[in-house]
Amino acid sequence: MIYFDNSATTRKKPKSVISQVVNGLTNYSANPGRSGHKASVNCAIAVNEVRENICEFFEATSPENIIFTLNCTDALNLAILGSIKKGGHVITTAFEHNSVLRPLHELKNKGLIELSIVEPKNKNIITASDIEPLIKDNTYMVVTVHISNVDGAITDIKEIGKLCKQKNILYLVDGAQSAGHEKISLKSDNISMLALAGHKGLFGPQGVGVLVLNDNVNLSPIRFGGTGTDSIKLLQPSDRPECYESGTIAVPNILGLDAGLNFVKKNFEIIQSKVAFLSKTLIYELKKINCIKLYTSEENLFGVIAFNISNIDSSIVSEFLNDKYSICVRSGLHCAPLKHKYLSTIEQGIVRVSLSYFNTVDEIYTLIYALKDFVKSFDIC
Amino acid sequence: MIYFDNSATTRKKPKSVISQVVNGLTNYSANPGRSGHKASVNCAIAVNEVRENICEFFEATSPENIIFTLNCTDALNLAILGSIKKGGHVITTAFEHNSVLRPLHELKNKGLIELSIVEPKNKNIITASDIEPLIKDNTYMVVTVHISNVDGAITDIKEIGKLCKQKNILYLVDGAQSAGHEKISLKSDNISMLALAGHKGLFGPQGVGVLVLNDNVNLSPIRFGGTGTDSIKLLQPSDRPECYESGTIAVPNILGLDAGLNFVKKNFEIIQSKVAFLSKTLIYELKKINCIKLYTSEENLFGVIAFNISNIDSSIVSEFLNDKYSICVRSGLHCAPLKHKYLSTIEQGIVRVSLSYFNTVDEIYTLIYALKDFVKSFDIC
Repeated sequence: MIYFDNSATTRKKPKSVISQVVNGLTNYSANPGRSGHKASVNCAIAVNEVRENICEFFEATSPENIIFTLNCTDALNLAILGSIKKGGHVITTAFEHNSVLRPLHELKNKGLIELSIVEPKNKNIITASDIEPLIKDNTYMVVTVHISNVDGAITDIKEIGKLCKQKNILYLVDGAQSAGHEKISLKSDNISMLALAGHKGLFGPQGVGVLVLNDNVNLSPIRFGGTGTDSIKLLQPSDRPECYESGTIAVPNILGLDAGLNFVKKNFEIIQSKVAFLSKTLIYELKKINCIKLYTSEENLFGVIAFNISNIDSSIVSEFLNDKYSICVRSGLHCAPLKHKYLSTIEQGIVRVSLSYFNTVDEIYTLIYALKDFVKSFDIC
Repeated sequence: MIYFDNSATTRKKPKSVISQVVNGLTNYSANPGRSGHKASVNCAIAVNEVRENICEFFEATSPENIIFTLNCTDALNLAILGSIKKGGHVITTAFEHNSVLRPLHELKNKGLIELSIVEPKNKNIITASDIEPLIKDNTYMVVTVHISNVDGAITDIKEIGKLCKQKNILYLVDGAQSAGHEKISLKSDNISMLALAGHKGLFGPQGVGVLVLNDNVNLSPIRFGGTGTDSIKLLQPSDRPECYESGTIAVPNILGLDAGLNFVKKNFEIIQSKVAFLSKTLIYELKKINCIKLYTSEENLFGVIAFNISNIDSSIVSEFLNDKYSICVRSGLHCAPLKHKYLSTIEQGIVRVSLSYFNTVDEIYTLIYALKDFVKSFDIC
């Protein structure tokens, strides 16, 4: 099987990730922060070291600002629902995933916020100049994706971060597809909140996401319960990070994520370079096929390549690849309806090839061979 | 190390649990319900089989009613925040964990609900007759713990379920400590919603909880995002279970939980019998120590045994056990402040020994030996 759906979940994990999850299920099988005994304390120390590691990599200010969640969607929900200012105004983009669009529309639909959605003026890149004209007196947050899960388009987060800082507005970045592929710094990118998926470019297991906070962010919890702190209080305490992490946290997943992050740190440049090379090769070869409609530009070599073949429904292509060649790609709408509207692919959907460091150039050529077979078989071009 | 903190997390897991988590990280490493390719479809089939397994064990009506969450607290939050009826009335008990008390107090504090908290009239057991007098016209839900995490006291859920059915009120049961220890049936216990922890008596990994729903429960999602369904919609779709499971679900944890559940199913009677035997032995031996204050009654042999030694702060006892004997017990308040108030142990806390099937009678005798040493060393009795 050739797996090209790494934007959904990186299939192959470094061995250290699996061994750290097992370590979490055996040597660190206890509940951190709930007891004073060795098993619990060792666990709490290990988890805190992971917070430190994440904090350092994303240049946050303190391990207390590293919040573990179920997944990136959970992190985005905490950021969006937890920061709400009633009657306030939020700006987001047409390139967002439903994990951003749906919580924001939930708030809008309830009449709690005003919402503006920007489309880029220039080709397929969201910039500060798209955002700035929409800022109003009651704008309290800007939310943008960093790298689009549909076509790999990158957002100019640095300039938007600067703008938000200058205007004293929160800036929430959805790093689901970019973490592990591009450097992200809370400090130098002026990000208020960064949402991360553990199981994508960071090579961790499914079942852990992260919200990285800046110091100045005031966030209400969205889940309430045991925190291991202030047990006597019937209302949620305010200790950070505990107040956002009610209930037992997923220690094996957190340790697995740590191993994934260490793999990324150690190999960052080679990962970036290999994914860029694979992306470039794929784009180069796709362009040779006459009736390919390519949506990913050659500047966006982040391992997300989107295309269609003529006007053929994207799912017909993906089914052919799956059935005849055991090649896994995703088709249809990629949980980002406004992006598809922007690209005029609501009906057709998009064939998405998403790559990881563990893919090979041979796999790319097999895909190209298979696509040429498709074009020939269906006598399209 | 002797580990007696299994109510926090069962430390030792069946080997099949670990191998299934690894299986999830390798052979089933894909995103279920997001694509039509083999890797994704196989994953979705595997996850659905786990839903069927859980559905059968807890006698729910359909796999669609099995909702995977981060942990039991997350499941309780979904149940409590998702079922809110503004201006309505909820009845709960003084025996609840903060995972129930805090979301309810959050709603009460915001003026959204009225809240009544019952204490049992009879010794340490919550019954339908405690609940019934508090039911009002606007009462829409009763929430009770099944087995207390503080002292193992059991609630008469069958009678309360009957009462709630008769009065047409939702009944939410916190099964964090009871699942895997006692039979729970949505059908015959008349439960509307059952919240479960994966990593306790069901021997799964941390990072997965479950909310089991009955058909007649109308619940709003509390997280919004990609569901793999109706991608075009900007508001959360209503498909069950997807609408409650936004974002990538934790496949390795879910498969691990399945293995844990199978272990429990296969060995249910022997697990129950061993935990009861260990509990009975411990209570029997504790009673021989003069200055022991025992809070767990001999009818509640569910592996949660609570005591204090004279008026000594519970943390002094737990630290002694940890430091001198490497015995892990929990002390202090156990995230259940009103239960401690009821037992008059707010100041002293409680020493809690929580057992699993994998504990041994030798470990119990070592604990008794250590406690006698404590009593002697501190010259208490």
